Amino acid sequence: MGECWARIASLQKANASRLCVGLDVDPSKFPGKLKGRAGKVFEFNCGVIEATHDLVCAYKPNAAFYEALGDDGMRALKKTIEFICGRVPVILDVKRGDIGNTAAQYAVAAFDGLDADAVTVNPYMGFDSVEPFLGYEDRGVFLLCLTSNSGSADFQLCPESDPLYLRVARKALEWDKGRGRLGLVVGATHAELVGEVRSLAGNLPFLLPGVGAQGGELEAVNAAEVTGIGLGVVVNASRSVIYAGQGDNWVEQVRKAALELKNSIGSK
Amino acid sequence: MGECWARIASLQKANASRLCVGLDVDPSKFPGKLKGRAGKVFEFNCGVIEATHDLVCAYKPNAAFYEALGDDGMRALKKTIEFICGRVPVILDVKRGDIGNTAAQYAVAAFDGLDADAVTVNPYMGFDSVEPFLGYEDRGVFLLCLTSNSGSADFQLCPESDPLYLRVARKALEWDKGRGRLGLVVGATHAELVGEVRSLAGNLPFLLPGVGAQGGELEAVNAAEVTGIGLGVVVNASRSVIYAGQGDNWVEQVRKAALELKNSIGSK
Repeated sequence: MGECWARIASLQKANASRLCVGLDVDPSKFPGKLKGRAGKVFEFNCGVIEATHDLVCAYKPNAAFYEALGDDGMRALKKTIEFICGRVPVILDVKRGDIGNTAAQYAVAAFDGLDADAVTVNPYMGFDSVEPFLGYEDRGVFLLCLTSNSGSADFQLCPESDPLYLRVARKALEWDKGRGRLGLVVGATHAELVGEVRSLAGNLPFLLPGVGAQGGELEAVNAAEVTGIGLGVVVNASRSVIYAGQGDNWVEQVRKAALELKNSIGSK
Repeated sequence: MGECWARIASLQKANASRLCVGLDVDPSKFPGKLKGRAGKVFEFNCGVIEATHDLVCAYKPNAAFYEALGDDGMRALKKTIEFICGRVPVILDVKRGDIGNTAAQYAVAAFDGLDADAVTVNPYMGFDSVEPFLGYEDRGVFLLCLTSNSGSADFQLCPESDPLYLRVARKALEWDKGRGRLGLVVGATHAELVGEVRSLAGNLPFLLPGVGAQGGELEAVNAAEVTGIGLGVVVNASRSVIYAGQGDNWVEQVRKAALELKNSIGSK
């Protein structure tokens, strides 16, 4: 198992949790006195992290929400990762994909610049767009395979005879070369298809988004699980946890939502 | 024709040019006294822009190179777009793709935050990942279709009977709904396939990367061209133009390289 997966596995055991909390910061949804205040992103994240760090196996900030807030947003993202300070692995959800020399720059931005433990990457442009991320031996890469949104039907499920998402799963296994650095993003909203991906993907770790606000089913979690490796499925929920409370006691509400979800997912 | 395409078309006519210059800033390749100086990104771009603004129809900064330089890089990108100041349309090469609510944040970052005229977007996650970008009536969206890199063979060319890139071309035409906001990225390195994409893509504008350093062929340009719309193919070259000179006269060398390439591409 690669070093990054080992760090996540260790926390899954210590916290008896497969829950990853997505830090998708949208000031218009912030609770109480923080509501609508773009300058309070870091403060909001600190509240979420303090309330949940012993209940999760990873955090997953989505870069889009920080980029939309400009310089201040990017500074808040950097400060948030520094605040987490290695206590919990950070999966930076950037979904990047570009030609080799450019992908190398994105890898620098995520791994050297922001010090993320893992990233999400888009497979559309093929191997040379993924390879630079795999050059970091202590980091992880989750490749988009079958995403949780309705648009996943447009290309990923085509053609029916050998759909794109299965081709991506096979290629990912090949590209990892047993190094334990590559995993797959498989949407929990496709519970009936998760098992098939698992059957092709060997022991690659799965990141399952779409539980909670997106209505993904917990059965998907069990279909994605595999015995024989130390790392269980990483199950992400964002909005349903971080915006669980709107009053002054929002931090307690966030903890309660995270705890309930962690327990309903169960440990490995 | 949409407003963004009209702006590019207008400059194609005024400058008799289909050349787009890619502003892929890599300080290790900077010329003369700027070499290796990450703090000189804006200064380098100003030199390139002053030398070429009357020879091009667009500029295409690739976000990866700026993100790799952290806060300073992102500030330089913002200042560069401000310096261009509407003289030349800016295609921000970000290749983003995420679920709808997240894609909306990326659109805010690119169109509201950085004031780009157009962006590149990745089709892997389907319609809801593209739709938010199409909500801006005065902006353009180039969807990745057939990319210029070797990895394009991994998924885009599969399956042979009805490859992914052709499916993307058909979907793009459908999604645009004749509004004139969507175009396609088709790599000039696939000269033999460009005509087929054109036959399926109606009058959607094409952005052709891969000319120059990537060895793309100019025949591809003619295969991509279509009569009946005012906007010609947008042909991008990055490294072969912006790093054409290494001495103190680098600005003149950049202008010479841009002029030669513009002339070899020809006007519409």
